[in-house]
Amino acid sequence: MAEIFCRSAAGLNDVETSLSAVEICMYEALRPHARSLAQGQMTARSAAFYHLSAGGRRVRARLALAAGLALGLSKVDAVCIASCVELLHNASLVHDDIQDRDVVRRGQAAVWSKYGSNLAICTGDLLLSAAYGVLCRISQPLLLPAMLTLLHQRTAVAIDGQCADLAILGGQSKDLPAYLRIATAKSGALLSLPLELALLAAGHADAASVARQACENLAVSYQIVDDLQDLHADIASVDGCVDQTHCLNIVSVLLNPNDRCSLVSQAQAIAAAKMLAHEHLALCEGQAVQLPSGSGEQLLTLSADLRGLLNTQMVQAAD
Amino acid sequence: MAEIFCRSAAGLNDVETSLSAVEICMYEALRPHARSLAQGQMTARSAAFYHLSAGGRRVRARLALAAGLALGLSKVDAVCIASCVELLHNASLVHDDIQDRDVVRRGQAAVWSKYGSNLAICTGDLLLSAAYGVLCRISQPLLLPAMLTLLHQRTAVAIDGQCADLAILGGQSKDLPAYLRIATAKSGALLSLPLELALLAAGHADAASVARQACENLAVSYQIVDDLQDLHADIASVDGCVDQTHCLNIVSVLLNPNDRCSLVSQAQAIAAAKMLAHEHLALCEGQAVQLPSGSGEQLLTLSADLRGLLNTQMVQAAD
Repeated sequence: MAEIFCRSAAGLNDVETSLSAVEICMYEALRPHARSLAQGQMTARSAAFYHLSAGGRRVRARLALAAGLALGLSKVDAVCIASCVELLHNASLVHDDIQDRDVVRRGQAAVWSKYGSNLAICTGDLLLSAAYGVLCRISQPLLLPAMLTLLHQRTAVAIDGQCADLAILGGQSKDLPAYLRIATAKSGALLSLPLELALLAAGHADAASVARQACENLAVSYQIVDDLQDLHADIASVDGCVDQTHCLNIVSVLLNPNDRCSLVSQAQAIAAAKMLAHEHLALCEGQAVQLPSGSGEQLLTLSADLRGLLNTQMVQAAD
Repeated sequence: MAEIFCRSAAGLNDVETSLSAVEICMYEALRPHARSLAQGQMTARSAAFYHLSAGGRRVRARLALAAGLALGLSKVDAVCIASCVELLHNASLVHDDIQDRDVVRRGQAAVWSKYGSNLAICTGDLLLSAAYGVLCRISQPLLLPAMLTLLHQRTAVAIDGQCADLAILGGQSKDLPAYLRIATAKSGALLSLPLELALLAAGHADAASVARQACENLAVSYQIVDDLQDLHADIASVDGCVDQTHCLNIVSVLLNPNDRCSLVSQAQAIAAAKMLAHEHLALCEGQAVQLPSGSGEQLLTLSADLRGLLNTQMVQAAD
C-alpha cells in the first residue's frame, strides 16, 4: 500500500528533514554491537539494510514526526518514535511476505525470495528487536514502561490480525464484519501506534483512544483503496471474476456469492466499497480534528489522499 | 539441550517458588490486550501457550532468578528479568525449529509442525515482542534504556549466530574457530543475558563482561555435550560415520576430513571434544566465582552438571 499516499503534509520541511534522521537511526539500530560473525555469509543485518534501502513512503514515520513535532516533542524523541514504528512495520512486511509468498516488495525482490525464508525469518526478528531497542534513545525514560506496554499491545493486535488473515487464506469464512476486524487489527494497530506513542510522550495519553479510532477508520479505507487498486489483477487471475476462495478483496466480500460473476453485482460491490471507504474517512476526519495541537493534521492529509484516489480513473475504470 | 541440566542450585526454594511466578508472568505477557479476533481460528497466542506448556528446564529463568535474588533484587524484578529472557529464548526456539525443520520440541510436535510455518512465524514474533513488553514491570524505569540496549544487543548477537549456523547448513566451510564463534553467539548470548540483566538492575554493570565471558565458555561446553549426546543419532543417520556436510557436530568438526570414517580418529575426536569442553568449563568456573554476592552460583551448578555428563556412559559409549 506504500504507493497510495503521495501528497505532503503541512510542516513539510521539518518532517522531510527529520525523515533522513530516521533513516540513520534505523540503520544504527540494526547494528547494536561491534562484533560480527559475518565472514562472507549473508547476515540478517545485511538483508535488513537491503529491505530498507528500497525505500517506501515511510507513512508511519511521517505520522510520528508530524504529530511529535506538532505536540512539541524534541526532534530526538520524534525521530526515536518514528524509527521505532517504521522498524516494526518493516519487520511485519518481511515476515508477511514470507507468509503470503509475495515475491516483490517496493519494486525489488522480497527478502525471502532473494535470500530464502530462513534468513528472512531472522531479518524480521532483527527488525522487530531493533524497534524496541531504539526506544533506549527516548529522553524521558520514566515514560518507557507505558511506551513498552503500548508497543507490545499494538504489536500483539497486528499479529492477531495477521493470524486472522492467514485463517481466511486457509479457507475460513469471510464476511464484512471479519473484513473490518482484520483491516482494523492488521493495518490499524501499526497506523495508530505512531500517534499514540507521540501523544503519550507529550503528556496527552488521554487523547490516545481518539487517535486509535481515527487510525482504525483510516486503516479500513486504506485497505479498501488498496483492494480496489488490486482488483484488476485479482479479476485477471481468476477468469474474469473476483476469486471467492483465496482473496480477501473487499469486492469479493461484498459480492453476492450466488451471483459472483455478474458484472452488475461487481459494479454494485465496487460502488458499495467506495461508499464504505468514504464513510470511514468521514469518521477518521471527525476524530482527527479532535486531537490536540493539530497532531491529527497528517491524518487529514492521508484521508484527503484516499478520497482523491477513490475518484481517480484507477478506481473508475473498474466500475 | 533442555535435558542436560537436572540438578538444583543452592537457594532452591526461592528459585523454585519464583519459577511459578515466572510462568504466570509469561502467560500474562502473551495476552496484553483484552480484544481478540479469535473466532475459532488458531492464534499466535494459543500456539505460544501450547509451546510454553511443554515445559523445559527454564535454565535461563533459573539463572536470572538465582542471580537476581543473590544480588538482592526484589522478587518482582527478578521474575520480570527471568520472564523476559525465557520468552526471548522460546521465541528463538519456535523460529529455529521452522528453520531447522525440527519436528519435535520437548516431547511434543514443534509449533510449525503442528500449526504450520506461517502461524509459527507469528508465534515467535509474539514471544519476542512479549520479551520486551514484560520489561514494563521493572520497578526502576530509569534502568530501562540500558536494559533495552543490552536486550537488543544480545538478541542481535544470537540472530547473527543463527545466520552463521544456517550458512553452515547451506554448505559453508566449518572449522573449529567457526564452531566456537557460532556456539558462543547462538547459545552464549542468551545464556549471559539473564546474568547481565540481573547485574545491571542490581548496580553491578561493571561485572557484566566477566559474566558474559563465563556464559560464553559455558555455552561452548553446553554445545559440545549436546553434540556428543546427539552423536549416535548423527552416526546412525549417515552410514556409520558423522556427516561432514550438513551437521555442525563438534566431532565432525574435529575429525580429519581425509580420514572421516576411521573409528580411531572418531574416538580421538570425541576425546578432544571432551577435553575442549572441560577446558571451557574450567574457564567458566574461574570467572563465575569472581561475580559479586555469589551471583555466579548457578553457573557453577550448571558447570558441575556438564562435567558429570561428560563422564557418563552416554558419552563413554561413544568412545
